[in-house]
Parts: sequence; structure tokens; C-alpha cells
Amino acid sequence: MISNEIKKYVAFYETERIIIDKKLKASLNKRKPFSLYNPAAYILESSGKRLRPLLVLLSAKAVGGNYKKFYNAALSVEMLHNFTLVHDDIMDNADLRRGNLTLHKKYNLNTAILTGDILAAVAYEFLLKDSKVNAQKALESFTKGLVEVCEGQSLDTEFETRTSVSMQEYIVMIEKKTAALARTCCELGAYLANGKNEDIKALSNYGKYLGIAFQIQDDLLDITADKVEFGKRIGGDLLEGKKTYLFIKALEKAKGKDKADFEKVIANKGIKENEIPKYRALYEKLGVIDDARSAIKSYTKKALTSINKLSNKNEIEIFHWLADSLIKRNK
Amino acid sequence: MISNEIKKYVAFYETERIIIDKKLKASLNKRKPFSLYNPAAYILESSGKRLRPLLVLLSAKAVGGNYKKFYNAALSVEMLHNFTLVHDDIMDNADLRRGNLTLHKKYNLNTAILTGDILAAVAYEFLLKDSKVNAQKALESFTKGLVEVCEGQSLDTEFETRTSVSMQEYIVMIEKKTAALARTCCELGAYLANGKNEDIKALSNYGKYLGIAFQIQDDLLDITADKVEFGKRIGGDLLEGKKTYLFIKALEKAKGKDKADFEKVIANKGIKENEIPKYRALYEKLGVIDDARSAIKSYTKKALTSINKLSNKNEIEIFHWLADSLIKRNK
Repeated sequence: MISNEIKKYVAFYETERIIIDKKLKASLNKRKPFSLYNPAAYILESSGKRLRPLLVLLSAKAVGGNYKKFYNAALSVEMLHNFTLVHDDIMDNADLRRGNLTLHKKYNLNTAILTGDILAAVAYEFLLKDSKVNAQKALESFTKGLVEVCEGQSLDTEFETRTSVSMQEYIVMIEKKTAALARTCCELGAYLANGKNEDIKALSNYGKYLGIAFQIQDDLLDITADKVEFGKRIGGDLLEGKKTYLFIKALEKAKGKDKADFEKVIANKGIKENEIPKYRALYEKLGVIDDARSAIKSYTKKALTSINKLSNKNEIEIFHWLADSLIKRNK
Repeated sequence: MISNEIKKYVAFYETERIIIDKKLKASLNKRKPFSLYNPAAYILESSGKRLRPLLVLLSAKAVGGNYKKFYNAALSVEMLHNFTLVHDDIMDNADLRRGNLTLHKKYNLNTAILTGDILAAVAYEFLLKDSKVNAQKALESFTKGLVEVCEGQSLDTEFETRTSVSMQEYIVMIEKKTAALARTCCELGAYLANGKNEDIKALSNYGKYLGIAFQIQDDLLDITADKVEFGKRIGGDLLEGKKTYLFIKALEKAKGKDKADFEKVIANKGIKENEIPKYRALYEKLGVIDDARSAIKSYTKKALTSINKLSNKNEIEIFHWLADSLIKRNK
């Protein structure tokens, strides 16, 4: 049975997602040159969950701000996120993103590089429109997020060519690659709406731990998701020999022939399509799918412990609902 | 005979260039991951004229500020400039930059994309260190510069595939691609040192017009420079069929067989190495080398007219010296 509270949160999310989509669509409208802004609009308009803008708005609201004053800041984090997607897709040589052709496949390499660049630039432009209060703090948080996303992406790339990566190194990597921007979203809303330090801290850690949980969930979905809903091919991480949470955990736990099988993935820089079921079975046998689920729960719990410290207790529940929805997501 | 004043300006520039080089070298020192920051240091440490940081410092000084308080802002524009160089070199498939291997040649494509990204991010980080006064204005100027640089690069790429580009379109392109960042440098120094509006305007226009003159000079040097001093191959723009100031002017002025020869460059997307002397001779015959020199002088004059409006008359002369040096440069 769905409670009235949850219905209210879902309705809030749906309403805001539509507004954000509309504003994103309008954001680059009529800007020239079209050779630059049309590809940027292509990626911005492809459907996304818009979780990062939502975090900005919810955080502003959580500290007592009128969240409707911060849509430009909300758009800015989505733009920054899309900048990272465009460049990451080039580096990963990915063909599809959210079920659509990636930018470098639809256009070409040069267009994709430059489109990424303009998205980062325009992200700052939009953030500055809403930075009337605590501009310095907000821009520092935004920039720190951007720096860490680049560092995380670099570590991720570095891990591809390394023979061993510890779980601790992996967590540092996803903290930067994924969680830093989620943390920034929460901080931004709180700074711009002039929140108190304790509330900023509570939101910041919520964003960080939620981001870590989100990335492990992403690693998990790569092997457990339904292809149609996921919008990407299943087992892609294994095909590319990516050192995901599951892979690193499996390598830690496996012995004998199983261990050799995982070491082969590293040596061969990936597996073949027809080997996916075998490795999925190995993951299950070793219990790393359950381990991933536990880790997701554990980081989510840390996020909730942090958000429970918010001074306005009425604003806490929606963050619980959001974390809960993310754990249950299938794409 | 070199006057004492000029000796003083040269000494100032030399002193500051060394300080800037040293600070650039230290700026990313010990930052991890090395897989990201070593390539970034490689490009930052390759010798450059450091004109953009110099403009920041001179502008702060011109409005009465203690320019030594703004080295981080000075570094930030050099970082942003290097971000554009790294990505542009990928797009142009260039092998050499300042006589060294370009980043994607020394490392690889993915490293070069990400190195460009981190340079832009770190540029904001350094600017924020010095943005205690007029942070909003300074960051808006910086971001506007970044947006326009991307727009200019997109136009430049677009022009490559177009059969005709007007001189007006070309000027708009270089205003964005080159002059916008020079303008930003001058504005930054003036904003951060809390300059008066009229002084900011005088400096801003100086930067803009100097930037336009600088780019036309760059186009000119491509065909008239000495290879060793220039650090790049001569006639590279012609080899690639780039629509430079000289090329557009030549196409405007040429008739009959000459015009057909230039149209052939467009159709073939460039010329062969052994055709460079022929096209150089055509440029001379049509007088476009002189036209470029006149245009450089004319835009430089606009820059000087603007800087003459500075309220502190003692600060004007060094900007004249700088413009004069740029006109006379051979690399």
C-alpha cells in the first residue's frame, strides 16, 4: 500500500522533472552557432532521471529556501553531468546512452569534445545566474565537484590497465567519479538558500553516501538489469573488463579455478559475449551480488543517518523516500 | 635606441614571466592521480609567452591594485588557455605545439580529452582563490570568455567545411576564439582589484582589440615566419585549407585563374606541401600580406585608443609597449 506521503513525493518529483525537462529544452534554444548548441541540446534533451537537479531543489527546500528560485542552479548540475557523460562516452567508446546514439556516434569526435566543453561552460553560466547568496561557497563546491569528477574518471581509466585494484581504491574512485557531484548538488541548494552550517553538512554527506550507493547499484544493474528498461547492453562492464564493485569483490573472494577465471578477464581486458552467463553464475556462486546489495544498503544507511540531522524535521522524509526509490530502481 | 622606459617594461615582463612559470610549475605539484596531473603539468610547463597572465597583472596594476595579490587569477587564465590548446590540437590533429609533441600525440586521445577538462576545472579553482572582491563579476567574465572560446572554436570548425566565409564572419569568429579570452584577462585584473567602471571598459576593449590583432598576426606568421622561431611548420594553415584572414582576403580580391586557384584549395580541403611557395607568391601578388599588416595596425590602434582612456595616465604606456611588441613578434 502506498502511503499518501509517498504519493506526495512522487507527485513532487514528477512535477519538478517535467519543469526541469522543459527548462533544459529552453536553456540553449536559439543560441548560435547551431553547430555547437544543437548537439548540446541533443544530449540535454535525451530523457534522464534528473536526480541531480532534484537534489539541488530538495536541498534548498530542506534549509527553508524557496526552491523555485534555484532552477538555474538545478539546470547547471544537469549540464555538468551531461558534460561528463559526453566525454566519458568518447573515452569508453560507447555506442548508446539512455537508448540513444552517443554524441560522438551521432555526430563525430570533434563535435563531441567541443559539446562537452560548452556544456561545462554553460553550466557555470547558469549557476552564476542563481548565485546571489554565498556565490563564493557555491562556486567552490561546484568547482570541487568538477575537479573530482575528472580525477575519478582518470582513476577509472587507470584501473582498466592495472592488474589489481583494492576495494578501498575503488571506493575512492567512485567517491570522486559519481558521489562528488551528488554531494555538490546537495551543497549547492543549501548554500544558495543560505542554509546553516550543520544543515549543509547533513545534506553534503547525504549526497556523498547516496552517490556511492548509486554507483554500486549501477555496477550491480550492469549484470542484473533488464536490457529494455536499462537502455544499455547487459554485462557491458564484464565485456570491457571493467573493475566494478562486483568484479573486485569476486577477485577478493574467488579461489582456485574461479580466481583464475577472473584473472583471465584482466589479462584479456574483458570477456566474450557468450561468456556473460558463466561470469554471472560465478558472481552468484561467490555471493558478490548479495555483497553489492549489502554495500548499497550500508551506504544508503549512512546517507540516512546524515540527513536525519537536518534541523527541519519535516524535510527529512522525502530524502528517505528518494534513497529508497534509488535502491529499488531497475535502470 | 631602446629607451629606459622600454627597458623597464621588458624587465617587468621578464621578471613576471619567470614568476608565472615557477608558479605554474608548482600549481599541480604532488596532486593525484598522477595519470591526470602529469600530462596537465606537461602542457602547462611547456614554454609559452604567458601574455594572458601578464594582462591580468597589468590590468590589476592599471586600476591601482597590488597586482601581486592576483597571481592565482593570472595562472587561471593560462590554465584556461591551455585547456583550449589541448582540445584544439586534438580537433586539428596537430602534432606539434610550441615545438613539443601535442598532448594526444605524447599520450593518447583519452588522456588529452581529460587533461583539457581538468585544466578548465583547475582554472576555476585558482580563480576562486583570488576572488575575494567582485567574485560574481570576475566569474561571469571568466565564464563568458570560456563560452565564447568554445563558440569560436565551433565556428572555426564550421568554416572548414563551408565554401565561403565573409570577412565579417571571420572577425566574429576570432573575436570569440581568441579575443574573448584576452578581454577576460583584462577584465579579471580590473574587477579583482576593484577598478572603476570606466577603467574596466577601457581595459576590456584593449584586450578585445589586441586579441583580434594578435590572431590576424598569427594568421600572417603562418606564412611569413621562420620555422625554427615559430616552432610550427610554415604554411600549415594552407596545407589544411584553413580560412584565415589572408585566405579570405585573397579569395575576395583574386580574379580569373588566381581565384580558381584559391577555390581549388577549398574544394581539395588544402594544398600540397610543394604548392606553398606558389600560394605565398599569390598572397604577395594580391597584396593580402600588406592587407593583414594594415588590419593588425588598425585593430592595434583601436586597442590603444581604448587604453588611452585609463584614468591613471602613468599606467598607459606599458600597454602601448605590449601592443607594439606583439606587432613585431615573429612567433
